[in-house]
Amino acid sequence: MEPSTIARLRATCPDKPGIVAAITNFLYSHNANITALDQHSTDAFGGTLYLRLEFQTPHLDIARPALENAFASVIAERFDMEFQLTYAADVKQVAIFVSGSDHCLLELLWRWARGELPCRVAMVVSNHPDHRENVERFGIPYHYLPVDAADKAGREARILELMDGVDLAVLARYMQILPPEFVGRMENRIINIHHSFLPAFVGADPYRQAWERGVKIIGATAHYVTAELDAGPIIEQDVLRVSHRHLVPELARAGRDLERQVLARAVAWHLEDRVIVNGNKTIVF
Amino acid sequence: MEPSTIARLRATCPDKPGIVAAITNFLYSHNANITALDQHSTDAFGGTLYLRLEFQTPHLDIARPALENAFASVIAERFDMEFQLTYAADVKQVAIFVSGSDHCLLELLWRWARGELPCRVAMVVSNHPDHRENVERFGIPYHYLPVDAADKAGREARILELMDGVDLAVLARYMQILPPEFVGRMENRIINIHHSFLPAFVGADPYRQAWERGVKIIGATAHYVTAELDAGPIIEQDVLRVSHRHLVPELARAGRDLERQVLARAVAWHLEDRVIVNGNKTIVF
Amino acid sequence: MEPSTIARLRATCPDKPGIVAAITNFLYSHNANITALDQHSTDAFGGTLYLRLEFQTPHLDIARPALENAFASVIAERFDMEFQLTYAADVKQVAIFVSGSDHCLLELLWRWARGELPCRVAMVVSNHPDHRENVERFGIPYHYLPVDAADKAGREARILELMDGVDLAVLARYMQILPPEFVGRMENRIINIHHSFLPAFVGADPYRQAWERGVKIIGATAHYVTAELDAGPIIEQDVLRVSHRHLVPELARAGRDLERQVLARAVAWHLEDRVIVNGNKTIVF
Amino acid sequence: MEPSTIARLRATCPDKPGIVAAITNFLYSHNANITALDQHSTDAFGGTLYLRLEFQTPHLDIARPALENAFASVIAERFDMEFQLTYAADVKQVAIFVSGSDHCLLELLWRWARGELPCRVAMVVSNHPDHRENVERFGIPYHYLPVDAADKAGREARILELMDGVDLAVLARYMQILPPEFVGRMENRIINIHHSFLPAFVGADPYRQAWERGVKIIGATAHYVTAELDAGPIIEQDVLRVSHRHLVPELARAGRDLERQVLARAVAWHLEDRVIVNGNKTIVF
Repeated sequence: MEPSTIARLRATCPDKPGIVAAITNFLYSHNANITALDQHSTDAFGGTLYLRLEFQTPHLDIARPALENAFASVIAERFDMEFQLTYAADVKQVAIFVSGSDHCLLELLWRWARGELPCRVAMVVSNHPDHRENVERFGIPYHYLPVDAADKAGREARILELMDGVDLAVLARYMQILPPEFVGRMENRIINIHHSFLPAFVGADPYRQAWERGVKIIGATAHYVTAELDAGPIIEQDVLRVSHRHLVPELARAGRDLERQVLARAVAWHLEDRVIVNGNKTIVF
Repeated sequence: MEPSTIARLRATCPDKPGIVAAITNFLYSHNANITALDQHSTDAFGGTLYLRLEFQTPHLDIARPALENAFASVIAERFDMEFQLTYAADVKQVAIFVSGSDHCLLELLWRWARGELPCRVAMVVSNHPDHRENVERFGIPYHYLPVDAADKAGREARILELMDGVDLAVLARYMQILPPEFVGRMENRIINIHHSFLPAFVGADPYRQAWERGVKIIGATAHYVTAELDAGPIIEQDVLRVSHRHLVPELARAGRDLERQVLARAVAWHLEDRVIVNGNKTIVF
Repeated sequence: MEPSTIARLRATCPDKPGIVAAITNFLYSHNANITALDQHSTDAFGGTLYLRLEFQTPHLDIARPALENAFASVIAERFDMEFQLTYAADVKQVAIFVSGSDHCLLELLWRWARGELPCRVAMVVSNHPDHRENVERFGIPYHYLPVDAADKAGREARILELMDGVDLAVLARYMQILPPEFVGRMENRIINIHHSFLPAFVGADPYRQAWERGVKIIGATAHYVTAELDAGPIIEQDVLRVSHRHLVPELARAGRDLERQVLARAVAWHLEDRVIVNGNKTIVF
Repeated sequence: MEPSTIARLRATCPDKPGIVAAITNFLYSHNANITALDQHSTDAFGGTLYLRLEFQTPHLDIARPALENAFASVIAERFDMEFQLTYAADVKQVAIFVSGSDHCLLELLWRWARGELPCRVAMVVSNHPDHRENVERFGIPYHYLPVDAADKAGREARILELMDGVDLAVLARYMQILPPEFVGRMENRIINIHHSFLPAFVGADPYRQAWERGVKIIGATAHYVTAELDAGPIIEQDVLRVSHRHLVPELARAGRDLERQVLARAVAWHLEDRVIVNGNKTIVF
């Protein structure tokens, strides 16, 4: 199966009988071959249906725009449905933001180099100059944007300019505030890794907070960025058992392994169009 | 949603385009409301498709036998499909077998009493007399069948007689051999809990084997029983971290918690018709 | 090894060289045989040392009170040490409090019946009458204390009276407020199970809170009770992966298994004198 | 605390009263400051005692060789004890072997670069030329030793020559046989990562074996290499839940993350002298 011929449909609508039959019929009638189908209904009577389909496009009898138009008029309108049709061949442009710690950055770059992240890493942006060599070795442009209190507006403008055409921004332990305008226009397309099991330990220095509370397990959380700090829809979390032997530096060291894994999984799922955002929650198919 | 109106379809067939559309159309046309759908294809081209659907029956326009006949002729024949239609209202009759250790038995009985296991526990069979009081308190008949070398045939005949009408046998740490005739006729309807991470440590005394090998993690495995010891299709496994501080008795004690959870999950999934057996493997939807 | 001949020493003092040598020498000189030793120092220079020793008493050359006095004057004074000497033969008296849900209560009773919890369950106290038969079957007195708004003082007095001689109170999903006087005098001797991964989801209905926040993992926390709700020293936590398929009732059902395990582990560790409280944190050896 | 002043004692002897007192006294009398102490006894009466101590050396009143001699004559002889005294200042020389897959190699190099692995990576040896650039960037020599059926002896001789002075060899997914003479002289100093939960799936293609058996969990195992394939003492294992959706390539991809973590932990523990080998098992303190 050629990855470049995979298409994905994500849809959300009020649940009622006949939706899956209608969609699968529609696609079958256009010679699409469905290779995966996941659905979730919050309630069979009066709930919301979330649905994700993967299908193969080689034998489609119509062009993509026509398919989308037909789906909109034949299916979406009938069922009051929101939907997104995406194609693996439209490779997503990704920008990675990083500050001083390189463990999440390198994890993403190495996975990408091994073919585990289906995207184009368009650039790395950092307020630190240190990662340039490690990034450029992969043939990826590195933009060093130092924080300059005297020219906040200029730095923000530069970020907005760079982000033109970017489909996904990944904050791989990035400790600066993003331009609010950028956050506003990239809804559900900026992924952050927070080094705690959210909603515990929002904000600064979560490993210190965890140590002070004496938890027996630490966590990491990948979530979409919203205007409110550490409060966006959670995509993935994972945890690790710790003990009294872990002081703050040991928590931070152990946590690095968690952060890398959790962020990498969330980014991969986003790139494969597996995530549907439902208010402040996600459904990951 | 009334549990008693849920129906489930499990189907297996060569994968090709149009199957899901055909099935969902068929059910929709008979006023069945699909509330869950899972599918898995081993390969979109030339693979095998496994599918499970849950649907609601209150508004069905035909009786169950007619539905089954129609499905067989309209769908199954066309796609060379094996299928099973089951109804939550047909409550499964379950027999639990147990020897000396009561932890798995009690786990199942208490979950059943809390409504977590949708079945009727028809009886408990044991080669030990000890559990009678604990079982009969739940209003469940207890059959004490001591092992009698002089009357093996009589004991086997008694078991076969008791099992008449039983849909599922659960070996909740049962240490005796079942009559081969019974195993033969109950394919994929006898669940055993083995106290190791199979295929490691097949056979007797797996905690001692685990201790001798010096593993850092122990496991438990719930599987369907076949003629070959501990080799049947695996339904569920789980594991637990241990250390050098765990000698054999500590492994056995820690393992009891695993065994209870793993067996209870496997039994619940079987009762909800979530398991499709594929050769020596299972698909759990 | 006879359990009844085990003694345990827990000690806390400013760390400096020679402490372990002094303690082990002292015990050796009195014919105590050390069978386990754990220590933790927050910092080798200027930190605090936490220490737990298990030793065998059959050949002690002095009586227990004399041993304790000698240890106090020879060791504890020299190192500015707080310590507790406990003997497995002094079986702890335990009271279990429970409200409507019986899963934690039954887990504790069954483990106790299997010899996994070294204590005497002196009584079960409940504001519900329903669990009487299940408790009395174990030969344990059941005290039904209905909540009576008109006689709060009387109920509190009755609890205080019952608790006379109790070494440990376990809140096995107990939804009522305990008398503050009782909480005050039982510092680090009341264990509660909270059905969330604290400090996330303090207070009422944590499964609903977890569902609303869209977490991908739920947890349970066993902690000592303090005057502040859900804020006492954490003894044990564990977690479970969930998905969008888990609505509030499914979270609650899955969480029950967590709660049972986490509470049972915390209670066992307390009974074996493995827990040292350090401010608002615990060290579990 | 200066890492370079840490010393570690690992000792094994028949258990009897007075050992810990004797050792801690001995060290205290020479002004060593004990900062960690772990012990494990297989049985308090007639068992074997395993013990690990960390202590600080700045104020030692005798030179290291004298300390070792004194310990041998005063303590080890008295208790029939085997022991090893090691010093963090004696940085271990490590050789990493790798074949085609670079994920374990890079994991080790990056952790080493971050200061997580206290050693000197003396060289990387490979039967593939591909990793040279990635290795040499870290300033580490890369030895490409192609497999040459016509000159097996020459290749083996070259490996033996290179290994002169190496304290630890790490097989980071190395698919060639090591010279038996090398394996013989490096007892408990060669660590291999096997991509299964040993003892399940010994030998070639364990992910395929796992898929064929239909396990629900896969694992990875780090162990010391012995003459017998995949049968040496296990240092660390970890596992990952999988499902029917994981075919062999998906198992291999998911397993890579496990392999990296498990190998890195085992190597770190070895470098910190935390592992005591006991026959075919390990005690990890």
